[in-house]
Amino acid sequence: MSINIPRGTQDILPGEVEKWQMIEEKARELCKKFQYKEIRTPIFEHTDLFLRSVGDTTDIVQKEMYTFEDRGGRSLTLRPEGTAAVVRSYVEQKMFGYANQPVKLYYTGPMFRYERPQAGRFRQFVQFGVEALGSADPAIDAEVIALAMSLYKELGLKKLKLIVNSLGDKDSRNAHREALINHFQPRIEEFCSDCQSRLEKNPMRILDCKKDRDHELMKSAPSILEFLNDESKVYFEKVQKYLSDLDIPFEVDPNLVRGLDYYNHTAFEIMSDAEGFGAITTLCGGGRYNGLVEEIGGPDTPGIGFALSIERVIAALAAENIELSINDEIDCYLVALGEEAQDYTVGLLHKLRLAGFSAERDYLDRKIKTQFKAADRLNAKYVAILGEEELKANKINVKTMSTGEQAELPLDAFIEKFKETYK
Amino acid sequence: MSINIPRGTQDILPGEVEKWQMIEEKARELCKKFQYKEIRTPIFEHTDLFLRSVGDTTDIVQKEMYTFEDRGGRSLTLRPEGTAAVVRSYVEQKMFGYANQPVKLYYTGPMFRYERPQAGRFRQFVQFGVEALGSADPAIDAEVIALAMSLYKELGLKKLKLIVNSLGDKDSRNAHREALINHFQPRIEEFCSDCQSRLEKNPMRILDCKKDRDHELMKSAPSILEFLNDESKVYFEKVQKYLSDLDIPFEVDPNLVRGLDYYNHTAFEIMSDAEGFGAITTLCGGGRYNGLVEEIGGPDTPGIGFALSIERVIAALAAENIELSINDEIDCYLVALGEEAQDYTVGLLHKLRLAGFSAERDYLDRKIKTQFKAADRLNAKYVAILGEEELKANKINVKTMSTGEQAELPLDAFIEKFKETYK
Repeated sequence: MSINIPRGTQDILPGEVEKWQMIEEKARELCKKFQYKEIRTPIFEHTDLFLRSVGDTTDIVQKEMYTFEDRGGRSLTLRPEGTAAVVRSYVEQKMFGYANQPVKLYYTGPMFRYERPQAGRFRQFVQFGVEALGSADPAIDAEVIALAMSLYKELGLKKLKLIVNSLGDKDSRNAHREALINHFQPRIEEFCSDCQSRLEKNPMRILDCKKDRDHELMKSAPSILEFLNDESKVYFEKVQKYLSDLDIPFEVDPNLVRGLDYYNHTAFEIMSDAEGFGAITTLCGGGRYNGLVEEIGGPDTPGIGFALSIERVIAALAAENIELSINDEIDCYLVALGEEAQDYTVGLLHKLRLAGFSAERDYLDRKIKTQFKAADRLNAKYVAILGEEELKANKINVKTMSTGEQAELPLDAFIEKFKETYK
Repeated sequence: MSINIPRGTQDILPGEVEKWQMIEEKARELCKKFQYKEIRTPIFEHTDLFLRSVGDTTDIVQKEMYTFEDRGGRSLTLRPEGTAAVVRSYVEQKMFGYANQPVKLYYTGPMFRYERPQAGRFRQFVQFGVEALGSADPAIDAEVIALAMSLYKELGLKKLKLIVNSLGDKDSRNAHREALINHFQPRIEEFCSDCQSRLEKNPMRILDCKKDRDHELMKSAPSILEFLNDESKVYFEKVQKYLSDLDIPFEVDPNLVRGLDYYNHTAFEIMSDAEGFGAITTLCGGGRYNGLVEEIGGPDTPGIGFALSIERVIAALAAENIELSINDEIDCYLVALGEEAQDYTVGLLHKLRLAGFSAERDYLDRKIKTQFKAADRLNAKYVAILGEEELKANKINVKTMSTGEQAELPLDAFIEKFKETYK
């Protein structure tokens, strides 16, 4: 009896994995240009971390975490997102004391949420994200947004929509919070049970409810933008000015609230506008979280970041019919005839590879015709053919597959000659 | 109160992470040359998979797995090693039907074992590994070993020892098994409880016991090599011949048995010979596992692979005092004076990056002297200085940090000029 992959997860196989490699490579290159450095945190963290950072009223914490006890009785949780762990590390490693400030970090890796599996939604999914900690300059908000947009653009995506909002500072949020409670309270029983429990704890998240999104009170709800104090207003205007300076088009959407508790000031999402992309159009979400470092036990520190899922990038590419150009050629395939020649190619193959070539030979004792077929399937640029005769005569034939041209090289100088002629 | 990282795990931070990136990059390049393609399997699998493949008499399964139930009541386990999942995927995705055979795969990623944390041993550690499925050609055993050796060599490691052994085929192993039982049975009560329970289930693993390694019966134990049948002998000789063809020195060690149940024929380990490397000297372990695919529910298929830990690679580099050369220069740092100039650099910085340069500016409203210090710390090759005067006069000054040379460029053509002059 065979054993299946766990529900909601996927294997990424050759043929598909090259896309992932390319997207991650682009992300790494961009991070180098934007001066974000990689950080790797563990796959699991103490459960407390997520209760405190993501927030215990969120769906993630209430319904979606993979939480378990290890053999020492610690409650651990597979990370459902990346920011909490980066901030935990920032505090634990005292990065606030680093000479280079702000501290600009990126990560890529699997995240875990126990959700109902559906098209484009997995229980294990891969996020790429960045965090900039230690600066409250609105220019860094623009930089973070620009990094995400640049990744999508460099991959060739065109149908993108950036929406931004400001959630304001603490005072602005409190004023808005009160207005929201007054707005929803009288008719709260018309809303779902989640919304009812959100009313007192975190009424802003009612605006984010998927079930009640068409309720008439949603459209008439007071907008956060009406409650921004002067400082928050100036901050948001500066972010918008910088986005314009960077030639990044955007829309302001006062209803954009992010699912996690820890955001303030700038919030943003990048969506795909492509037809037929499906119901979940958000590719990337991010925002500012100035209180989070303190919440996790560090000094009061501003921070901003985003996270995006590689699965969604791939779905967006497919929706826009964009094929990433993947080079899967190999430089040389060694075809051998007869046992002696076959044996000889074991060493020869290794020398080719050490000389920098991608190279392959047959490992199934196949006939010469089948070896040629294998070379074809592997997209070999050149095929080198060695038979018993050639072996005795110290020769090897090289065929250029694109032209059919053949050349004879001395076997004992094959690597050097091949390098000269075909590199 | 702050929250700590889970015991036995580590954050890999900028300054250290570049080594990891470089090692993984080298591994990826080698896999391209050797024609192994990446596969990514989930972080967790159904627990059954490891019971069946790793083997329920092993320490891993008995003591070290992170096993938990998900919200749907499934027993899941964080993967303690990579081979089982690759084979599970091979069977589930029917890779035995692929046109290109053998199927040659590699993986990199975190693995999890609940062990006592100690120097160089973590509960989450990163393995790079390869699997070649579908060929019983001894040349592929040599290839797999050569790939591992090439990685270490390309990184500059010199103090390496490769040991190989043959565990033979099923018949050979059965004959050896009987001899081992006869050898240990009379005095088995002198051995640890683990060994006692291994006697009937898997006596070969007694040879691998760390507690009883100095018992006199260990040295006199019958060697597997005496029990190899002709086929197994010929196979092992061929592997050794090919290793010599590939100029890879090795020693045969008949006591080399691998900790997992599923090995047969070729087994190998690569150790560090470096002084002061510590007690655990094994860098890489691998071997042939011809029965495993069938065990997991697929057709009878030969297979071979290895796994190595990146943590150990880094420890071995340190033991040999090898510094990987990491380029952490940035191309250009923008120094700005005054609010208008600072604002202007937001857009300019982005254009530099889009033009392919790694570039940075100040995000902390720092004085010009402190901005220069920041540029220095970031190893900037060039610093471009923009003040209010220059902004008005459409100029920008570029300083070459290595020489101190200064040049003036037109501000509105800065990107093009910078590209021409400094690329």
